[in-house]
Amino acid sequence: MNILIAPNAFKNSLPADGAATAILLGLQQSRLHFTGECFPVGDGGDGTGDLLIKKLGGVVLEAPVRDPFGRERQATFGFIPASETAIIEMANASGIRLLKKTELDPLRALSTGTGDLIRAALDQNARHIIIGMGGSATVDGGAGILTALGVRFTDEAIDTSGLDPRLAATELTILCDVDNPLLGPRGAAAVFGPQKGASPHAVQQLEANLQRLADNIYKTTGKDITTIPSGGTAGGAAAGLYGVLNASLVNGIEYFLQLTGFDDALQHSDLVITGEGSIDEQTLRGKAPFGVALHAKHAGIPVIGLAGKLPQNTTRLDDYFDVLLSISRRLVPPAEAIKHTAANLTATSRALGNLLALGLVRLDQRGPLL
Amino acid sequence: MNILIAPNAFKNSLPADGAATAILLGLQQSRLHFTGECFPVGDGGDGTGDLLIKKLGGVVLEAPVRDPFGRERQATFGFIPASETAIIEMANASGIRLLKKTELDPLRALSTGTGDLIRAALDQNARHIIIGMGGSATVDGGAGILTALGVRFTDEAIDTSGLDPRLAATELTILCDVDNPLLGPRGAAAVFGPQKGASPHAVQQLEANLQRLADNIYKTTGKDITTIPSGGTAGGAAAGLYGVLNASLVNGIEYFLQLTGFDDALQHSDLVITGEGSIDEQTLRGKAPFGVALHAKHAGIPVIGLAGKLPQNTTRLDDYFDVLLSISRRLVPPAEAIKHTAANLTATSRALGNLLALGLVRLDQRGPLL
Repeated sequence: MNILIAPNAFKNSLPADGAATAILLGLQQSRLHFTGECFPVGDGGDGTGDLLIKKLGGVVLEAPVRDPFGRERQATFGFIPASETAIIEMANASGIRLLKKTELDPLRALSTGTGDLIRAALDQNARHIIIGMGGSATVDGGAGILTALGVRFTDEAIDTSGLDPRLAATELTILCDVDNPLLGPRGAAAVFGPQKGASPHAVQQLEANLQRLADNIYKTTGKDITTIPSGGTAGGAAAGLYGVLNASLVNGIEYFLQLTGFDDALQHSDLVITGEGSIDEQTLRGKAPFGVALHAKHAGIPVIGLAGKLPQNTTRLDDYFDVLLSISRRLVPPAEAIKHTAANLTATSRALGNLLALGLVRLDQRGPLL
Repeated sequence: MNILIAPNAFKNSLPADGAATAILLGLQQSRLHFTGECFPVGDGGDGTGDLLIKKLGGVVLEAPVRDPFGRERQATFGFIPASETAIIEMANASGIRLLKKTELDPLRALSTGTGDLIRAALDQNARHIIIGMGGSATVDGGAGILTALGVRFTDEAIDTSGLDPRLAATELTILCDVDNPLLGPRGAAAVFGPQKGASPHAVQQLEANLQRLADNIYKTTGKDITTIPSGGTAGGAAAGLYGVLNASLVNGIEYFLQLTGFDDALQHSDLVITGEGSIDEQTLRGKAPFGVALHAKHAGIPVIGLAGKLPQNTTRLDDYFDVLLSISRRLVPPAEAIKHTAANLTATSRALGNLLALGLVRLDQRGPLL
């Protein structure tokens, strides 16, 4: 029995490769005879870039960048020489995890550092730049990135005459893990502003800023960045890069699975295990476990989803996941529970392996049960 | 595939028959083809009597009793005419659930009402009386029961001359779900006093009371009630009835399984599912899921244990349970979680059914996986 272990990261708790290892360990502790392949996945969320660099055999490079408040620091990005492709993790330069909780201030935070990384990638003669945008601390519509690349903003318009000329020959791909638009009640300010520290009043100001940016980009380029799906990704940075740099906004997990040859790995698998901190109806809007499940279903391979949190009613999820299991082992507050994610994944995977072994072992002993 | 569904009650949350029904429902919602038999079990905990009465086809009778503070009320007990056996649930007359939380006071609470029920059983000409002692509010060493049956207590001794003469020809069996002795750090006062509302000071007084009772019983009957295993059951009522009435203290679940013909039900089962609110190393001291697992193991049938709470390390439990699964679905505080026990049992059993179906269905489609 070949098991493909393809979890997403468990947010604030365990990166995807740690989750895969924890699941593998649990299966190994069980009575199941199997071979397992760890294939951690990402949908553009923080950590996706690292997975891509490893999976594609890239090198890790370092560049000086400005953090969200303009302070200098070093940040890493990946480069794959064979395909002249750079892989940038926005959070490495502009991420929430670089800031203290008390520092969070999306009215002031700028994505400039991610622009610095793009310039560093251009210095490597990258023909293709892939950007994972999860975990950003900014809601600036990508204004910081664009500034770092030579765009000048005035009150009424934008001036792209100073734009780094190398960008014209470079393909930009942005991995999106949400389908939210730039503006409105489902927009970058309203939905993600509060997570990045915005007060209700600040959310209104951010919305007005993004609206003005959209107007100015429309005046200059003729492109309407308010209607493109996923434009709200990373505080609207996806929309801004689409409007000014013609970046492609792609479904993160779908792109990830294609780039990493997930379907090839499925070919020799009998079972897929995926997972995320929470699996619910939001998951069906294009999150990693959904993409994994879709591909597995297409290949006719059963899928098990593991999550710290599951809804009581999983009717809509059941169309994609053959089995959904919660990894919670104790009745503890969430803050306590996420400390145990790895141990809980291992314990649950052990039970899972024993269950699968039960069905299989009994066949040898007693003949088919059906 | 025949599944025997044999959970214990989930304490403070769901009686055993409700748990069995919730598990059956989940399996029915899954893709598994199976036949299920609900066989809820009890180990002497509150509710065990009700299960026995139903399983053995007894009638429910009512009698006037005194509650732990001497207030009159009606309480039920069961009677099985064919075997002249009465089944008494101590909690029906002397239980915590009859009292408001503010009323709990084990220094004053008396088990008299359970004695009233024993007299009512004798009035039915019971030759055998089985008592489930779980959920009692008392730590009186059974003094209340003995008083109700005609024993007179003095400071220095006990006087059994007034004892109901019918008891001489009656077999008394007490179902014990703990192995704690009457006295000491693992005794009735120290371990169960606090759960029944005793302050640390009250625990000391209760311990002294039980010690004096033991001394007096020894003086009168020559029986040492301090050494008998499980004597601490129900605030020492088990020890008191053993000392004065020659009651047999038996392992609750073992007795239950024998009386109800559990091994016969196992004969035509392929899988057993059991469960309890918490499964941990305490479970191995003779709780219901342990008894179920032992019998299933003996018959060579795999056992799955479901629990709201599981320890991180289940090494010792793995000798008895083929699979242990937590039913927790969300990261919520315990008080919130136990409201969802039935729904969580159903959801987990559905996943369980789908997992078992996965192993089986794939065999038809692809041949053996091993």
